[in-house]
Amino acid sequence: MKITILIHCPDQSGIIRSVTTFIHQQDGNVVYLDQHVDKQAGVFFMRIQSEFDSEIEIESFKCQFETELATKFNMEWDIHTDEYKPKMALFVSKYNHCLYDLLSRYNSGELRVDIPFILSNHKDLEYVAEQFNIPFFHVPVTKETKSYAEEEQLNLLKEHRVDFIVLARYMQIVSQRLIDVYPQKIINIHHSFLPAFVGAKPYHAAFERGVKIIGATSHYVTADLDAGPIIEQDVTTVSHTHSVQDFIAKGRDLERFVLSRAVQLHVARKTMVYNNKTVIFS
Amino acid sequence: MKITILIHCPDQSGIIRSVTTFIHQQDGNVVYLDQHVDKQAGVFFMRIQSEFDSEIEIESFKCQFETELATKFNMEWDIHTDEYKPKMALFVSKYNHCLYDLLSRYNSGELRVDIPFILSNHKDLEYVAEQFNIPFFHVPVTKETKSYAEEEQLNLLKEHRVDFIVLARYMQIVSQRLIDVYPQKIINIHHSFLPAFVGAKPYHAAFERGVKIIGATSHYVTADLDAGPIIEQDVTTVSHTHSVQDFIAKGRDLERFVLSRAVQLHVARKTMVYNNKTVIFS
Amino acid sequence: MKITILIHCPDQSGIIRSVTTFIHQQDGNVVYLDQHVDKQAGVFFMRIQSEFDSEIEIESFKCQFETELATKFNMEWDIHTDEYKPKMALFVSKYNHCLYDLLSRYNSGELRVDIPFILSNHKDLEYVAEQFNIPFFHVPVTKETKSYAEEEQLNLLKEHRVDFIVLARYMQIVSQRLIDVYPQKIINIHHSFLPAFVGAKPYHAAFERGVKIIGATSHYVTADLDAGPIIEQDVTTVSHTHSVQDFIAKGRDLERFVLSRAVQLHVARKTMVYNNKTVIFS
Amino acid sequence: MKITILIHCPDQSGIIRSVTTFIHQQDGNVVYLDQHVDKQAGVFFMRIQSEFDSEIEIESFKCQFETELATKFNMEWDIHTDEYKPKMALFVSKYNHCLYDLLSRYNSGELRVDIPFILSNHKDLEYVAEQFNIPFFHVPVTKETKSYAEEEQLNLLKEHRVDFIVLARYMQIVSQRLIDVYPQKIINIHHSFLPAFVGAKPYHAAFERGVKIIGATSHYVTADLDAGPIIEQDVTTVSHTHSVQDFIAKGRDLERFVLSRAVQLHVARKTMVYNNKTVIFS
Repeated sequence: MKITILIHCPDQSGIIRSVTTFIHQQDGNVVYLDQHVDKQAGVFFMRIQSEFDSEIEIESFKCQFETELATKFNMEWDIHTDEYKPKMALFVSKYNHCLYDLLSRYNSGELRVDIPFILSNHKDLEYVAEQFNIPFFHVPVTKETKSYAEEEQLNLLKEHRVDFIVLARYMQIVSQRLIDVYPQKIINIHHSFLPAFVGAKPYHAAFERGVKIIGATSHYVTADLDAGPIIEQDVTTVSHTHSVQDFIAKGRDLERFVLSRAVQLHVARKTMVYNNKTVIFS
Repeated sequence: MKITILIHCPDQSGIIRSVTTFIHQQDGNVVYLDQHVDKQAGVFFMRIQSEFDSEIEIESFKCQFETELATKFNMEWDIHTDEYKPKMALFVSKYNHCLYDLLSRYNSGELRVDIPFILSNHKDLEYVAEQFNIPFFHVPVTKETKSYAEEEQLNLLKEHRVDFIVLARYMQIVSQRLIDVYPQKIINIHHSFLPAFVGAKPYHAAFERGVKIIGATSHYVTADLDAGPIIEQDVTTVSHTHSVQDFIAKGRDLERFVLSRAVQLHVARKTMVYNNKTVIFS
Repeated sequence: MKITILIHCPDQSGIIRSVTTFIHQQDGNVVYLDQHVDKQAGVFFMRIQSEFDSEIEIESFKCQFETELATKFNMEWDIHTDEYKPKMALFVSKYNHCLYDLLSRYNSGELRVDIPFILSNHKDLEYVAEQFNIPFFHVPVTKETKSYAEEEQLNLLKEHRVDFIVLARYMQIVSQRLIDVYPQKIINIHHSFLPAFVGAKPYHAAFERGVKIIGATSHYVTADLDAGPIIEQDVTTVSHTHSVQDFIAKGRDLERFVLSRAVQLHVARKTMVYNNKTVIFS
Repeated sequence: MKITILIHCPDQSGIIRSVTTFIHQQDGNVVYLDQHVDKQAGVFFMRIQSEFDSEIEIESFKCQFETELATKFNMEWDIHTDEYKPKMALFVSKYNHCLYDLLSRYNSGELRVDIPFILSNHKDLEYVAEQFNIPFFHVPVTKETKSYAEEEQLNLLKEHRVDFIVLARYMQIVSQRLIDVYPQKIINIHHSFLPAFVGAKPYHAAFERGVKIIGATSHYVTADLDAGPIIEQDVTTVSHTHSVQDFIAKGRDLERFVLSRAVQLHVARKTMVYNNKTVIFS
């Protein structure tokens, strides 16, 4: 059994020593350790993985970790076992490229999650859900039905015990209620190299500005539009020979990859958020 | 003798045919042709290179081109021979990395220009000018002396018949008078991936935002700060492990390359400007 | 109606002028022209696109082109109209990532081809063909059945009038007979940065060598293993932290993109082959 | 005072705990720890940095480390303080681009080394040494004088107590005697994406093969030509429009950067070698 511990706490002496000693006392063997100190903020971050021969009682492990370490060092922590597959809900609108990319990775076992459902404000992609035998819920969003739609979304997420949400080119702004229930657990893909070209039609804006490189950015959703902690970014070159339509086509490939990588990092518990920025462990 | 012709004009039928026929009539042989149509703007761009066995009278060539072609198609054009080495003035402040990069390329013959002088508002880099035996002019810029400094700059540029100016991390905003005298002939390097992080301290801003990629942008200087036509951009990855100082160090390498490439493109007559955007020929 | 002409011939004076004049005489309007001269080989390459208002008789157009131009300049040429969708056969084995990538692009209209069938030496991916409603043919290949399998492949290709073949991680060496019938019309993806790591298990070899960058290469299949003209390559960074399995996972993303881009270039008639190298037009 | 410890040893339980406890007992504070396990080889690697308030006696520290830890875990180790600037000798031939790049970084304080001398088999770059006020030794290498030249090189290196050697496009194969005296301490830049295009004229070979990407590789020199442990690699795209001369020009920029980065990694004690591969710490 493999356990991954994510920690952040005020930087101080003795943290690594104490945590590795604790794991040793529980008969665990450290197989990976990566740490980072944000000197400006005075915060220590660590991701540590340990293997345990015998089955350990995870709840009691967590309890002891809290009592013996977390209190002393004032830690925020998360402990995950590799036995649990997180449940990922997919929100989409009309574009299928990110959806296909994630589903084919899911289908081939590359992406280790369960997908309880795909939700959309349009019916256009129902056929893709059918191709992959995944339940599809159509939750239209209009000015009038917005509040009702949020309610329905929350009910579905609760009912299916969803752990995190991926907005795979979901063209709606998600509600504050949703963000509150899923803090740092909603992953969005924005089709620009943030912070350039926030908001709608970034490819058109990039084309107008005459940039030579376009990008895509995956981030955790926060209350501020396109301003959440960045998980992953990538770029590709463009030139005067490319039309806006070419920008969009080239961008689709970026969006596919950047979103997939961000989801993989999240699922592998390699991301931590602090001060609206991410620490991404290797 | 090789002649490079740069043209832009309203898009219309028969331009390529007419120009190639004209060159044929002058006993020239087309060795390179690249064209581009901006469909949105309805503008045709072309860069065409021809070789001529016998020496041709360039002024009479230009005259005929104007009479027989330019008028008919309403062309804006530039004609260059490969015999002329453009004169490049370098403006610097205190950072030496872009300066060293350009001078070492100049020194090894990689960059085919003459450098009549290096100008700076500080004396810090005078020693580099001396290393490379290039005249150095110290023109301090303060609020009080600004207008006088501009005058001095313009005099030096005129006296040395400078063709274009490279701001190799010159930390001053150049005057409108200078821009008017050198339209699309002042090349700047901005240490961010424009249009993100316009203005001062872009690496600090990028660090604060928690981006995963930083960039540098070379552009022609216009009246609007950091908003001129982009010639070249490049990026490099960063992570939470990098401090602002690391951003700056990694950025220096981008700045070196991006500025050098932009200067090379300008010198090779591969750039055209239209609608605050560039066409960069291959 | 848009017509794309691809030409290569001995470099000589007057080609561009003659071709543009010919198109003008046929009442066509040149909308794109890109040319290249291989000076070492003395060969001229051109891709030229023209628009025609009225419907033109394509066979008569080709005939005139041959008589009036091709003979004179000793041209090899290809003429395509944008009305024809090429027929692409997909050969696969057991890996589904390239297949999914191509099919999702096909499905969303991004890839303008017809796919008459998917062929495999295994049944593993039949379910993917079913997901996308594409006929699937299982043609096992063993030492004994090899010759019969080739026959069956050729029959299927002929029957469905296939224009070109994509080997989307088809783990067999295709026969010389197939190559002869489809010269420069079989596109393969090799999972290394050719010419490094030719042959089997390139990711293992790259891992052993301790490289810091891995790649993928798409090329036209020739008689020499992994030595055909390269259409497209891309790379990604790796480090000591990556296992062979990580190399393979990172490589899958490269393979997806590199193969898709190569197929798109081929479909857009942007590739020409000469001296076992490609000219890729912009 | 900051101390960097580099360790590799057979993988076993308790290493991190023991080392961090040891540092704690010496009144040190761990400020950075990165570790890696090569599972295939069963080897543990670690780089750990600690700060000490009071001045510590480094020789006694090393002695205790050996006695209390290294023996027990069978460690190979290196301990460095940040107070020592390593001495770097530069070997060059006729190309100046890598030399200029390294010297300008040295000059601006970016590269924290001492450079006791530049050595060359030609006199061509003596002027660059003079520009930067660095002693220059001309040691010609011919078939007849080879053994004598090696002797002279070794004498100079010994006399100036050189710690490591950088071959900045030194076009000679260095002798086995030199490699024996400087194991994993001679850094070379090879102008190809190794293992593709080993040996002479890699750009010509890349051009012949028609690759779409070229690269450069920096590695520690071993007895096998261009086969030593790779420290850093980078690539850039090329196309049919580029001549061999263009490959060489684009490659120069790669060589500059790749060599500089490798030297920086070496100087920062971020490299470890094992099984002819490198571990490069972040």
